[in-house]
Amino acid sequence: MTDVALAHGRLAGLDEIVDVGRDAGRGGWSRHVWDAAETELRTWFVERAERLGLDVETDRNGNLWAWWGAPGPDAVVVGSHLDSVPGGGEMDGPLGVVSALDAVALLQAQGVRPTRPFAVVVFAEEEGSRFGIACLGSRLLTGSVSPDRVRALRDADGVTFAEAAAAHGTDPRHVGADPDRLARIGVFVELHVEQGRALADLDGPLAVASGILAHGRWRIDFTGQGNHAGATRMTDRRDPMVAAARGILAVRDAVRGDDRATIGRIEAVPGGTNVIPSRVTTWLDARSDLDDDTRDLVARITASATEAAAAEGCDARVTEESWSGRVVFDPALRDRLAAGLGGVPALPTGAGHDAGVLAGHVPTAMLFVRNPSGVSHAPEEHAELADCVEGVVALTTVLRGLL
Amino acid sequence: MTDVALAHGRLAGLDEIVDVGRDAGRGGWSRHVWDAAETELRTWFVERAERLGLDVETDRNGNLWAWWGAPGPDAVVVGSHLDSVPGGGEMDGPLGVVSALDAVALLQAQGVRPTRPFAVVVFAEEEGSRFGIACLGSRLLTGSVSPDRVRALRDADGVTFAEAAAAHGTDPRHVGADPDRLARIGVFVELHVEQGRALADLDGPLAVASGILAHGRWRIDFTGQGNHAGATRMTDRRDPMVAAARGILAVRDAVRGDDRATIGRIEAVPGGTNVIPSRVTTWLDARSDLDDDTRDLVARITASATEAAAAEGCDARVTEESWSGRVVFDPALRDRLAAGLGGVPALPTGAGHDAGVLAGHVPTAMLFVRNPSGVSHAPEEHAELADCVEGVVALTTVLRGLL
Repeated sequence: MTDVALAHGRLAGLDEIVDVGRDAGRGGWSRHVWDAAETELRTWFVERAERLGLDVETDRNGNLWAWWGAPGPDAVVVGSHLDSVPGGGEMDGPLGVVSALDAVALLQAQGVRPTRPFAVVVFAEEEGSRFGIACLGSRLLTGSVSPDRVRALRDADGVTFAEAAAAHGTDPRHVGADPDRLARIGVFVELHVEQGRALADLDGPLAVASGILAHGRWRIDFTGQGNHAGATRMTDRRDPMVAAARGILAVRDAVRGDDRATIGRIEAVPGGTNVIPSRVTTWLDARSDLDDDTRDLVARITASATEAAAAEGCDARVTEESWSGRVVFDPALRDRLAAGLGGVPALPTGAGHDAGVLAGHVPTAMLFVRNPSGVSHAPEEHAELADCVEGVVALTTVLRGLL
Repeated sequence: MTDVALAHGRLAGLDEIVDVGRDAGRGGWSRHVWDAAETELRTWFVERAERLGLDVETDRNGNLWAWWGAPGPDAVVVGSHLDSVPGGGEMDGPLGVVSALDAVALLQAQGVRPTRPFAVVVFAEEEGSRFGIACLGSRLLTGSVSPDRVRALRDADGVTFAEAAAAHGTDPRHVGADPDRLARIGVFVELHVEQGRALADLDGPLAVASGILAHGRWRIDFTGQGNHAGATRMTDRRDPMVAAARGILAVRDAVRGDDRATIGRIEAVPGGTNVIPSRVTTWLDARSDLDDDTRDLVARITASATEAAAAEGCDARVTEESWSGRVVFDPALRDRLAAGLGGVPALPTGAGHDAGVLAGHVPTAMLFVRNPSGVSHAPEEHAELADCVEGVVALTTVLRGLL
């Protein structure tokens, strides 16, 4: 039953791309939408899917769809993403794509012919690492983000989404809601490496997802007076770096219960060692179980950041960059899948996914594969080969039940 | 007497280069050793000097020397630098170079012929903005930094000093102490825009320098565990961003008396919004009147940073990147210059200069031109035209007295 292709102690699909986008500086892998690495992964995906006899098309938002048979309504769609955070792990995204392709191969080996339209999908810019909005491909597809806003988004080099899209064959004039394509999806299933250590603690290889915390991203700009680090007396300063440091501690202090709040990205302008900055920008990732709790958390952080800035003679401005309300996955589908897999547990997660975006539109489910370290978005992210194979087999079982 | 060339309300020399290296992102100017902007300024300097009949040579460390007459011993040397901090002002460095060239023109118009060898010098990488060590050109010349260490320094893109030097005609094998050239300098004078507001408070256009605070640069690496910003419980984190924030506040708290301590540059790795960083590096600029006070300040900061890191389950490591002991400029020369300029005040400064490096080897003096805002290392840095002209005239007077 487990004739899943393996190579060098990995799923063969993961091994084929293991050297694409390695990040020598940060460690791990950096693969961002339409950069050289992610473009190479797209080519790899097309070739891999075509070898299985699937027909690949790119939708108007840069997402890839590999159809087994003719596209059509009430389709079973399975997939994930190929992009990563900067210096991320090799499994976050690719494990779901590779498992989906491997499941197709297993189904084909088992002589299964889909009775419903079927596609493997790769969503673009799931991590939001290049243009700042996570799940961008699925958000565009579902119409939950304004195309005008997205076209104008800029990456760290100042390149707009519109420019990057056009350079890779996606006409930026046509990005945005794609209701016909969305209406074709009858059910969506995403397999993903677990991003915490709940399965390790439960001593099980697999789970289904129950829901996703509400979460979003906010930019906090602290502005002061740039000046000379040696010639400016301490008492004459309006130093936004000190304001930002107070703000970062205030973020931590604002957390209640199982809230999560993180500053993972920071930028000092101009950024010279012998220069008091004129501006320090931090990016806040905030999450909580309920939408209102998350809004309250950000309101507390906004108040504290403003106060922290004022204490240093600086200003703080908080700007929302993205928002994802709490997700509860389809309970009937969740229970059916869990039962079909021998009663695996249902777990909530703090991590956002394209499945979370689609859950507001179509019946959606997720499978999680155990991550023994619990570490994610870092090179240490890992799943044992045996668990990866269990994941492929479970996904195959799920798809057999749906097709 | 004041036939100094003017253009658009500026010294003509400053106006000629006003568009070189403008930084649209940060504001102000970014001109870093051997980048496109600084290379253009070198070409400009050579042409400007040759128009005055000076002979320009580049020394083994990438510094430019424009000789009026034959090079020789006991030379009068005047100059400054053309590089800037990222997003700096237009005067820090260039005002001294332009004033030196304008003084030569005035001396020539006055029929003065130097009786001593005379050169205008442009020192390389004074700000240390590309390779991290301030006054790099003068430190190499005087042998106060190891050539092996300098060759291996890397800029933000990973380019080594050796590679950048070789690409611009400076053989990296030959960088380092240049005792013959140093021995030729009989006296060095550097004119510079003031980097505080002492002259504005004193209501005077000019001052001579009395000394420079001891100062240096230290890198502080905070390391923790990279992880997922959504899936990692707050209690499970070892977040180096929080450790760094505590550290930045500890820097402020460690300051005593007239100490100055600044974190102007910070880098989070990997730097994704939805990622708890694995490492946050901050760069410390610390200064105090006496060498021992500065060492004590850094020792207090090191202890606090280590404690701050430990409180977050992280590590902190402090690495010295550069050190400049306290400078007292030659008192006899200082008093002679001040008297010759009608009794201008003598002021200490917190800013480092190539003059400070040379002061340990040859009689050295500095002239400061009033900066009404007191702001420096920022686009707001400024000197009024009338004060700039006073500076050129004063420098001419000083040079007449020395030649």
